[in-house]
Amino acid sequence: MSNLKAQKIYTQTGADALVVTQPDYRFYLTGFESSFGVVVVDDESTKFYTDSRYLEAARAKTAGIEVLEYPKGESLSSLLKGYKSLGISLSKSYASDYIAFKENGFEIVDSTPVFERAMSVKSPEELNKIKLACVAADNAFTALLPEIKEGMTENEVAALLEYLMRKNGASGTSFSTICAFGANASVPHHETDQTKLKFGDIVLIDFGCKVGGYCSDCTRTFLFGDDGKHGEFKQAYERVLAAHMLVKSEFTAGMTGRQGDAIARDYLKQYGLDQYFTHSLGHGIGINIHEAPNLSPKSESIFENGMVFSDEPGVYFEGKFGIRIEDTVTLVNSKVVSLTDSDKSLTIL
Amino acid sequence: MSNLKAQKIYTQTGADALVVTQPDYRFYLTGFESSFGVVVVDDESTKFYTDSRYLEAARAKTAGIEVLEYPKGESLSSLLKGYKSLGISLSKSYASDYIAFKENGFEIVDSTPVFERAMSVKSPEELNKIKLACVAADNAFTALLPEIKEGMTENEVAALLEYLMRKNGASGTSFSTICAFGANASVPHHETDQTKLKFGDIVLIDFGCKVGGYCSDCTRTFLFGDDGKHGEFKQAYERVLAAHMLVKSEFTAGMTGRQGDAIARDYLKQYGLDQYFTHSLGHGIGINIHEAPNLSPKSESIFENGMVFSDEPGVYFEGKFGIRIEDTVTLVNSKVVSLTDSDKSLTIL
Repeated sequence: MSNLKAQKIYTQTGADALVVTQPDYRFYLTGFESSFGVVVVDDESTKFYTDSRYLEAARAKTAGIEVLEYPKGESLSSLLKGYKSLGISLSKSYASDYIAFKENGFEIVDSTPVFERAMSVKSPEELNKIKLACVAADNAFTALLPEIKEGMTENEVAALLEYLMRKNGASGTSFSTICAFGANASVPHHETDQTKLKFGDIVLIDFGCKVGGYCSDCTRTFLFGDDGKHGEFKQAYERVLAAHMLVKSEFTAGMTGRQGDAIARDYLKQYGLDQYFTHSLGHGIGINIHEAPNLSPKSESIFENGMVFSDEPGVYFEGKFGIRIEDTVTLVNSKVVSLTDSDKSLTIL
Repeated sequence: MSNLKAQKIYTQTGADALVVTQPDYRFYLTGFESSFGVVVVDDESTKFYTDSRYLEAARAKTAGIEVLEYPKGESLSSLLKGYKSLGISLSKSYASDYIAFKENGFEIVDSTPVFERAMSVKSPEELNKIKLACVAADNAFTALLPEIKEGMTENEVAALLEYLMRKNGASGTSFSTICAFGANASVPHHETDQTKLKFGDIVLIDFGCKVGGYCSDCTRTFLFGDDGKHGEFKQAYERVLAAHMLVKSEFTAGMTGRQGDAIARDYLKQYGLDQYFTHSLGHGIGINIHEAPNLSPKSESIFENGMVFSDEPGVYFEGKFGIRIEDTVTLVNSKVVSLTDSDKSLTIL
């Protein structure tokens, strides 16, 4: 009994057995979420060893996979004896496992590049889950806006948005929602707190959710009332939005992550804003909220149709304000298609 | 400039430098949540290298720690040159980092046992955060019960509970809420789905939240209406509750995790229920929802005052029903004190 996805990774890795202990890679192969387990693939079978808590559910929810109880007290090296070489992810396996495998005489082949490449191009089924996660995020955000009132805390707004995402079909968030009012928005990864919303505040919300184990990621920046003091902010907003849209119109399949990042960075440079764009343009999105490939000044990853990633230029003026505009996007027929799509024109509540 | 907690771990590990790349250990030393960074401790200083997104916030929120921007493009081995031996966690560091350190000639000392021991006994400040997370979970659960109506889905109930935890001060969940109706409760780690609540259903909810980076963990099982068919369930419920309470009255500081597990297991055995108690009694709780020490049939960990852990006996009748009753507890003056404490007498809504 074997599983096609697992066999493909196994063959490309080129070891006697592929051994998968990481929750994300394990979910990619099995489609089943678990906190403990190991997948062992060889040229004959795909076996998923897990503990008694998961056996019943795993058997019901996996295909082409033999689900077995992990033999209590047995070491992984002992379970795998008979194989000469093992394919494991060196970037995601723990050093202690690696050391034990080496001590037991196994040859090690790194499976990371094969997994990263396979996982970066989404199947239609995976894309569908990401789309559902994006729709849940969009609908929740649209429903949130009319509920935002003066005096609410960042935590309250974040809590309500997370609740609305779940009401729209999400199983949970893909990361802790970032909600920043006023000068807090100048910290790119502000820790959401008890700050209260005041008239005239800039509001930055970075949020995403999961459907079927796949993530969405979106950021919106807007004004809670216009106190007439936001000329500099409004001008910068239009430029960040233009940079975001330029990536959508000019980035294509076949380009590198570096080229994508440069589209936004070069545009912002014309206005002296590139010095405030202190992070990279984007990252791959899938089972993990951050995965390969990246859009950064150093990324030589070549982008392909079916990849899903963020387009998120941002500028941060320390102690004053910050702006980030982010959509989850994919490449279809070489062009960028937006998967999150709530209104990005400057909103003044 | 140095940090007392970091110096203590450094001294006990006994290498030239302690190198911390894991998010949980990093948070334990710095008190600052971040997705990227490395803490380097030697006998003179505690340095936290992170990226530009976190610099401003990290400087504001850490004490006795020099916050520096990680030099772009520099490898960790190059950053650490000059040290002969490095203390890293072999169980939590990635194999690729370990291999790079070995190739660069560093001697490696495992810091895991020192971290696990230090983190298992909570400081008053840590305990206070856990208490707040427990109170938020208790208050949310109490507020949830009157809102549960026939026809709600498991997802809706979980979403509402998570919202109520945030409203009660939580920054988010400590794990994805498990909500199981009817026979779904027989799967110890049921994946919350669209099952609708019916009159007479057993409801099992396993939930927890975070406050200040620390977790709570709680499970309640109850009936949504009494259809008169639950005699077997009610009898088993009273026995699981008695096992749970027996642990609270008999487990003391100085006992091992194995002895704690046996209190519940031996009690259930009298009624032939031990064969349905398919997991261990409990686990440590802190920055991580699962951490050292464990209460299991094999755990030789000796429990001490200030440790925080779960007391969660459960029985599962495949395809029929499941029961789990869990509180987060701690040891004070050698005795168990419950930190979550919502009503555990059999509730019929």
